[in-house]
Amino acid sequence: VNLILLEPGEIGDGGVVRLRDARARHVSSVLNVARGQQVRVGVVDGPRGLGDVESAAGDDVVLRCVFEAAAPPRPAVDLLLALPRPKVLQRLWAQIAALGVGRIVLTNAEKVERHYFDTHILSPDGYRPLLLEGLQQARDTRVPDVSIHRRFRPLIEDELDDLIGDATRIVAEPAGARAIADVVASRPPARMLLAVGPEGGWNRFELEMLGAHGFTSISMGPRTLRSDTACIALLALAHDAMRSLQ
Amino acid sequence: VNLILLEPGEIGDGGVVRLRDARARHVSSVLNVARGQQVRVGVVDGPRGLGDVESAAGDDVVLRCVFEAAAPPRPAVDLLLALPRPKVLQRLWAQIAALGVGRIVLTNAEKVERHYFDTHILSPDGYRPLLLEGLQQARDTRVPDVSIHRRFRPLIEDELDDLIGDATRIVAEPAGARAIADVVASRPPARMLLAVGPEGGWNRFELEMLGAHGFTSISMGPRTLRSDTACIALLALAHDAMRSLQ
Repeated sequence: VNLILLEPGEIGDGGVVRLRDARARHVSSVLNVARGQQVRVGVVDGPRGLGDVESAAGDDVVLRCVFEAAAPPRPAVDLLLALPRPKVLQRLWAQIAALGVGRIVLTNAEKVERHYFDTHILSPDGYRPLLLEGLQQARDTRVPDVSIHRRFRPLIEDELDDLIGDATRIVAEPAGARAIADVVASRPPARMLLAVGPEGGWNRFELEMLGAHGFTSISMGPRTLRSDTACIALLALAHDAMRSLQ
Repeated sequence: VNLILLEPGEIGDGGVVRLRDARARHVSSVLNVARGQQVRVGVVDGPRGLGDVESAAGDDVVLRCVFEAAAPPRPAVDLLLALPRPKVLQRLWAQIAALGVGRIVLTNAEKVERHYFDTHILSPDGYRPLLLEGLQQARDTRVPDVSIHRRFRPLIEDELDDLIGDATRIVAEPAGARAIADVVASRPPARMLLAVGPEGGWNRFELEMLGAHGFTSISMGPRTLRSDTACIALLALAHDAMRSLQ
């Protein structure tokens, strides 16, 4: 954890925050800071800042926080992800949030098994702590928006424009010819949406539907990757391509 | 699994192979192929090919295989990785092999805990099946070479040249200024070695030693990543940069 995230309601007068949970133990035992030292803090969906440690004793820590004027920008990359197996998704939440996404759109696809939807990690109580874990790792405060879509076609045909707007749409697939950096360089986007298919890939109908709705196919090389590996790899490539525009 | 890996000794006259283990069950039940159909096969560290299914019944499958003339090239990227926590490494082996590495050099560092070395997954019996799992996912046959080094300094000062030769040496670190694509484009390498530090990062001594032994610092952006996420992200960027040279 490289930043302690605070809920807005936890911050009292003068920026004083009292922690009595796992964050307190992290400050006392892992960061190992004491009165007079500082820790990085952030408000969920708000600004980052610094907290002066006023007291730190086991699971009772008091910080006096000063925050920056503005929240960090929302990451400029969004993700359209065919719902992975629960065990895989469980591991992915924090990694996706750490790499940085503005929005996570989880969708059905032919090769997504129905029972994947019957899992507590699809409830905000299940995934939000994992997203916050990833943000604290990456020193971000912006919690990705999450939406879950049990029907692929209405999502792509009717709902995606409202969710994603005019982000440049990218789908990684074995037949893709271009590199993501070329797509970005040829028409620098304000935002990107990356589509990552299920284990076994999108079927032909799904790929045609993505193509008909503005998705450009890109390649990540000849090696077939597991969908969680592909997801991390593609997010890394997209952020790298966006940074290269700056 | 997108390719069934065979040990050289399993291949009989006329390319006939009899499988009676998890691979047989995978062919029968997951790939769901029957007599007359084909599956992709490969010889460990040898060529890829196709196997005609002669019979497939539960955990007893007979294939007649024909192989390509040459083995696929060894991946042109190597990895120098500060030993991660056992649980993290356990998950990484297959992902690293799927992304493609020629050699994995595991090293100690100040922030590597000593007990990380006391684990069965550091024995070939522990990690080789996981590497093969990743290769089967990515349709590769080249098993990465693995070496484990309990002392950082002798590794970097004395052993690395023999292990890695003249590969372009890259270390990802927060203070890195260049993008990996720039390093690759400015002096196109035949091979690359990527150094990924421990949770908490390399210490100053370690970074200076890497710098003094030819490592160029690169940045993966302002977000601090967990070392497994960083490892996957950096491998993806390196392969992408190498592909862009072709």
